[in-house]
Amino acid sequence: MSAAPASGPTSTSPEVLAAECLQGSRRAAARLISMLESADGGAARAASRAVARLPLPAQTIGLTGPPGAGKSTLLDYLIGLLRKRNLRVGVIAVDPSSPFTGGALLGDRIRMSQHGPDSGVFIRSMGSRGASGGLAAAASDALRVLGGAGFDAVLLETVGAGQSEIEVVNLADTVCVVQVAGLGDDVQLMKMGILEIADVFVVTKGDRPGAEDLKLQLERAIHEAPGEVCRAIRQLGPGFAASFQGPRWTPEVVLVSALRAQGGDELLAAFERHRAYLATPALAEALRTSRAAREIAWRATRRLGDALNERLAPGGDLAALAADCAAGRLDVESAVARALGGSA
Amino acid sequence: MSAAPASGPTSTSPEVLAAECLQGSRRAAARLISMLESADGGAARAASRAVARLPLPAQTIGLTGPPGAGKSTLLDYLIGLLRKRNLRVGVIAVDPSSPFTGGALLGDRIRMSQHGPDSGVFIRSMGSRGASGGLAAAASDALRVLGGAGFDAVLLETVGAGQSEIEVVNLADTVCVVQVAGLGDDVQLMKMGILEIADVFVVTKGDRPGAEDLKLQLERAIHEAPGEVCRAIRQLGPGFAASFQGPRWTPEVVLVSALRAQGGDELLAAFERHRAYLATPALAEALRTSRAAREIAWRATRRLGDALNERLAPGGDLAALAADCAAGRLDVESAVARALGGSA
Repeated sequence: MSAAPASGPTSTSPEVLAAECLQGSRRAAARLISMLESADGGAARAASRAVARLPLPAQTIGLTGPPGAGKSTLLDYLIGLLRKRNLRVGVIAVDPSSPFTGGALLGDRIRMSQHGPDSGVFIRSMGSRGASGGLAAAASDALRVLGGAGFDAVLLETVGAGQSEIEVVNLADTVCVVQVAGLGDDVQLMKMGILEIADVFVVTKGDRPGAEDLKLQLERAIHEAPGEVCRAIRQLGPGFAASFQGPRWTPEVVLVSALRAQGGDELLAAFERHRAYLATPALAEALRTSRAAREIAWRATRRLGDALNERLAPGGDLAALAADCAAGRLDVESAVARALGGSA
Repeated sequence: MSAAPASGPTSTSPEVLAAECLQGSRRAAARLISMLESADGGAARAASRAVARLPLPAQTIGLTGPPGAGKSTLLDYLIGLLRKRNLRVGVIAVDPSSPFTGGALLGDRIRMSQHGPDSGVFIRSMGSRGASGGLAAAASDALRVLGGAGFDAVLLETVGAGQSEIEVVNLADTVCVVQVAGLGDDVQLMKMGILEIADVFVVTKGDRPGAEDLKLQLERAIHEAPGEVCRAIRQLGPGFAASFQGPRWTPEVVLVSALRAQGGDELLAAFERHRAYLATPALAEALRTSRAAREIAWRATRRLGDALNERLAPGGDLAALAADCAAGRLDVESAVARALGGSA
């Protein structure tokens, strides 16, 4: 399991590990991510604070799509292409590891692949158990670890099973949605919001029957819903959209056949075009600021929440509020008001 | 989709709807739950505050298990048995409605069943999109709506796909994990934490080959790991466990064949035994207090987080912190410290 304790001695502080990480230590990076996922909330929060000063990777690409769309194979193919361009590649594969999904984790499958021994590649699975403050917060911290350790491009992969996975993939600069012909219900999937999260679509197994058709279908859906698309501007909210005079991004659709090594360079070119789009001056600044605001807010909120939980627990200075609520002497909203009043 | 707006006029305030709910209005209950799921954060939060004064249902039973275990059929069967006992039954079926899970929602499937027209039954699907403050928070509020509207027993069902679904099912007084023979990897599933979340196991399709074997396997696992079990005491933490002198609950395993209408009464009897266990005086009070503390903490934290997000947004009094972070003039943890300092 990904959350297993690091094998070495664990006395090293997260600050020391963060410094080692900046020197390029893979071992320090791995141990920091383990700490971030620790079931010990105090250790996880200390690690989160230590990595806050590490830089984000230069480029993060989110990959999501339904099971069976060929994400593992595509990821393997992309890693190879990025390595040929001399980029150091990080992969964070997010699998919701509930008691009911006991299968092989994606990251483990890739780790066993051809890129496992390559020191320019770092692959890590993250599960959703034990991630204090939410999976997206833990993944965001892990991105800083990989950025700090000098990985140029990070592929952030989810199986796309729920809200928290969508939040994770939205941490990426560019979101790539993987589709494959023949899984059925293509049009229905599009209706359900897939256009809202994609900057680039990949149709995998591009040499198979139906792939070209699916590409055309996706392109038609994109062009019929121009107001719906452009994830970056939508994330910045209606205020920004109204004031922004620059261009809108139109999602691209690329056919890829990983097995035949076809379409990969075209896909990377689409990622580059999206990256150039995000560098549009006013947009780039707004995205950086909005991202910083979100990160400050969730870090501060998590700290306030931890403090409140402690104060409300037995022995804490607000424990009487919980007892009064439990006994029906106080309603929960009045207790909230008193808890907030008392913390001001 | 479950988050569709209510069909009537929407000018009624959530406070008025909460009062109507206490009079037993199903329409008010449905509209409140729609408001709780609203993509409009302000409306969702107003609804959440309005329902905070409604009582929780007398009994909430969580149902979870892997896809294919027969949860829908079991739910239908249980509803019928509870109705025969003259209980008003609520069902909240939580489906993570990502763009990739476009299938029929469980709640909709049940709604179309025999119990759909019964006024003593209220069935609602909740998705994870648009649930401000998390799915567990929205589900917790929905429980108050059903409690307020006079539903005696609420079945809270999840497909068990991730961390947030586990949090949801943990809102229930009694958690029932549904298992079926022949899905494979039975022993592995147990290893991965299934014992930690179950108060009662149901083996569905109990008349089929392998069901009896699976029951014995589960019972053996339960008896080999006595320290691991008893969800209620574990949730209260090691401090409580050390001081509590009362008995530990040992999970029960019940064979059910919904199609042959066999085992249901035995299952309800197991739920009743667990309910009686939870009524152990010291335990009952600790559970109520711990639940109240969690609810106060998440409500207060959500309010603080919303306020911080507003203050950090463009135009807010903390907007400069986000801009300074984005420009690299300030690291995110220093910004957090300043944001918290400024809000004290």
